[in-house]
Amino acid sequence: MSVEPFDAVDVIRIKRDGGAVPEDALRWLIDAYTREYVADAQMAAFAMATLLNGMTRDEIRVMTDAMIASGERMSFAGLGKRTVDKHSTGGVGDKITLPLAPLVASFGVAVPQLSGRGLGHTGGTLDKLESIPGWRAALSNDEMTAQLRDVGAVICAAGTGLAPADKRLYALRDVTGTVEAIPLIASSIMSKKIAEGTDALVLDVKFGSGAFMKDVDRARELARTMVALGTDSGVATTALLTDMNTPLGLAIGNANEVRESVEVLAGGGPADVVELTVALAREMLALAGQPDADVETALRDGRAMDSWRAMIRAQDGDPDAALPTARETHTVTAETDGVVTRLEALPFGVAAWRLGAGRARAQDPVVHAAGIDLHVKPGDTVRAGQPMFTLLADDDQRFTRALDALDGAWELDADAVAAAPAPLVLERITA
Amino acid sequence: MSVEPFDAVDVIRIKRDGGAVPEDALRWLIDAYTREYVADAQMAAFAMATLLNGMTRDEIRVMTDAMIASGERMSFAGLGKRTVDKHSTGGVGDKITLPLAPLVASFGVAVPQLSGRGLGHTGGTLDKLESIPGWRAALSNDEMTAQLRDVGAVICAAGTGLAPADKRLYALRDVTGTVEAIPLIASSIMSKKIAEGTDALVLDVKFGSGAFMKDVDRARELARTMVALGTDSGVATTALLTDMNTPLGLAIGNANEVRESVEVLAGGGPADVVELTVALAREMLALAGQPDADVETALRDGRAMDSWRAMIRAQDGDPDAALPTARETHTVTAETDGVVTRLEALPFGVAAWRLGAGRARAQDPVVHAAGIDLHVKPGDTVRAGQPMFTLLADDDQRFTRALDALDGAWELDADAVAAAPAPLVLERITA
Repeated sequence: MSVEPFDAVDVIRIKRDGGAVPEDALRWLIDAYTREYVADAQMAAFAMATLLNGMTRDEIRVMTDAMIASGERMSFAGLGKRTVDKHSTGGVGDKITLPLAPLVASFGVAVPQLSGRGLGHTGGTLDKLESIPGWRAALSNDEMTAQLRDVGAVICAAGTGLAPADKRLYALRDVTGTVEAIPLIASSIMSKKIAEGTDALVLDVKFGSGAFMKDVDRARELARTMVALGTDSGVATTALLTDMNTPLGLAIGNANEVRESVEVLAGGGPADVVELTVALAREMLALAGQPDADVETALRDGRAMDSWRAMIRAQDGDPDAALPTARETHTVTAETDGVVTRLEALPFGVAAWRLGAGRARAQDPVVHAAGIDLHVKPGDTVRAGQPMFTLLADDDQRFTRALDALDGAWELDADAVAAAPAPLVLERITA
Repeated sequence: MSVEPFDAVDVIRIKRDGGAVPEDALRWLIDAYTREYVADAQMAAFAMATLLNGMTRDEIRVMTDAMIASGERMSFAGLGKRTVDKHSTGGVGDKITLPLAPLVASFGVAVPQLSGRGLGHTGGTLDKLESIPGWRAALSNDEMTAQLRDVGAVICAAGTGLAPADKRLYALRDVTGTVEAIPLIASSIMSKKIAEGTDALVLDVKFGSGAFMKDVDRARELARTMVALGTDSGVATTALLTDMNTPLGLAIGNANEVRESVEVLAGGGPADVVELTVALAREMLALAGQPDADVETALRDGRAMDSWRAMIRAQDGDPDAALPTARETHTVTAETDGVVTRLEALPFGVAAWRLGAGRARAQDPVVHAAGIDLHVKPGDTVRAGQPMFTLLADDDQRFTRALDALDGAWELDADAVAAAPAPLVLERITA
């Protein structure tokens, strides 16, 4: 006879049969899973039932809260600064955290960015920053707090103490086809952000071919779910719903994305990267009580760049060091005249990954110089023979499989008319 | 890089998204699960997706075939007799296999009954027979074949060589809330029966409160699925859909069920046990080419009893030995006059289990003398003070919890009219 107050099979059956799991039973499930009393197979069945039958808003709140309760909670209450975090659901060429964190910090706000490494076709923020000689991702909680006080911006590795239940559940979902369940995605992201102790949070929820959520309606549902969760937990939360059908900016990789981020911090850079950086910075600063902050000027007048340099130095990086460059390059040129009508994010992400910019297994290293530099974007006019993009790798054997991934990934139309790109931000979602 | 031809997550996703898994992928999944390349957590997610999204008839056929292919196949081709097997989905007081196998064998047909032990509220055929001093459940394949040739009837433990994939999957389903998926139930039962190599098979698919399938429509769907599976595999298969809202017969337990079975073999016994034994025997003999066999006479004239005695002796049991009797009894009497309008199978099954007739864990022993003897059945008229049923146990401490299970399990109605019981067999399902 077990002394546990619930039975995993009973809880699974409730969700399987379309019911709402009572609060005490759901809290027990997460706690018992963290203690390894509930087996992976049981949680996998529960996750699949959740994916197919959904959860009520109340269940998602309890689930999130239970995952927070599985680990430590951080607090930045003693900083004397507002803290604002940002989370992106991930995309191809998404280096926005790099210019955004120092830009927002330049307004006197603390920006704690606990980040991860990449797995699969979306890159990891830490992998990108590790292109910078000397820079280190691992900070102690004390180092992090000191840097938030002194510099304002921190981008570092998340410790293992936050929401350990989520860590175990996330790894399980990855191998059981249950990643795409909105209640599980929302509780996974938000449990870590709430446990981190930020005052406010801006979510960049992406939709489109290079995003986790291909479908805009599902992305909107996820955004609304997360905004409600943050708000219910006392974290001021808003979300932008943004387009990820085309890679962000012109650089996909690691070192080249750092280079592009520095261009933005120097007042230049591709229009779409600037557009999204500015939009997210405005949201973050509005939540921090500065709705009228002139973020564009901070990019132009060097304040954001100063903040970047201080942030990199505080983590032992050299902001003036040369970044690694690829040993081998392969440039693809246009076969005909025309207008670029399509340049699909997902295959470019996969190609960059195959070139070495990403990893297939968590323990693999990444090649910092590998990736893709785009020379054109949708709406641009090209002439036959003009460079379209350049593959970057340390080994030219990698080009064939990368080019395979890019088969059919872009389109040139001789009859189309050159056009300005569609706006990146589709909607703003607030509580 | 894996050399496996498929990826478990891709297969899970197909079922998750409501698709039909291609034959080669489904065969791979079952094979890879047997090899332990596919993890329990992955199979649990697949099982839940199957429960919620179903399988096509073709997928169920492939699934069954893949489970057969995971182990050995038996053959009784050299016997020179037709072989006919019977499978019941299990119920309370269901001792039908005991009189049925020798009855059918008395017509010169081979009846190989590979049986199991009980777990939970439904008893196990082997547990019942082990009430008989000396009787042994474990036979080698050679012993089994010899007994089929010489005696005709064998009831013994299934070896571990048949459908090992099913063995692993069944244990997984039990702890992940995925037992109730019809495609998984059907392929589990039929893979073992087809691998066993029987020529023909009669299924007793039960519905009602004491059955695995409470709902008659789901029981019918299961029966149709299994009949189609058997037929597709060259096993002549029919099914009877039978009522399991009330315990079968008057004995629920082990030794008392053997006693009741012997009464039936002696030409007596409760009407419902005789009715179902005769109905199933007719189906089995019809499939063995004897549609006009006079089974009632074989029960009355001692042929079935001779066959039973030979069967018990062949497995070292003494058919004349005294069966164990309970040390403690507790009789419940009627509080008022009235007609028994309800006597619910499930609570009586649970009560018998709590008295010691069943086991909570596979390694527990059962108390052979424990159980319940009913003195009345629905439709019977009783007077206040008349005995309703008697609890049997080796320890009177067990009565309280058994009586708890029986709270509300029967109904006496002073205004109802005594009535003949409803027919047990609702439908006959054939290919």
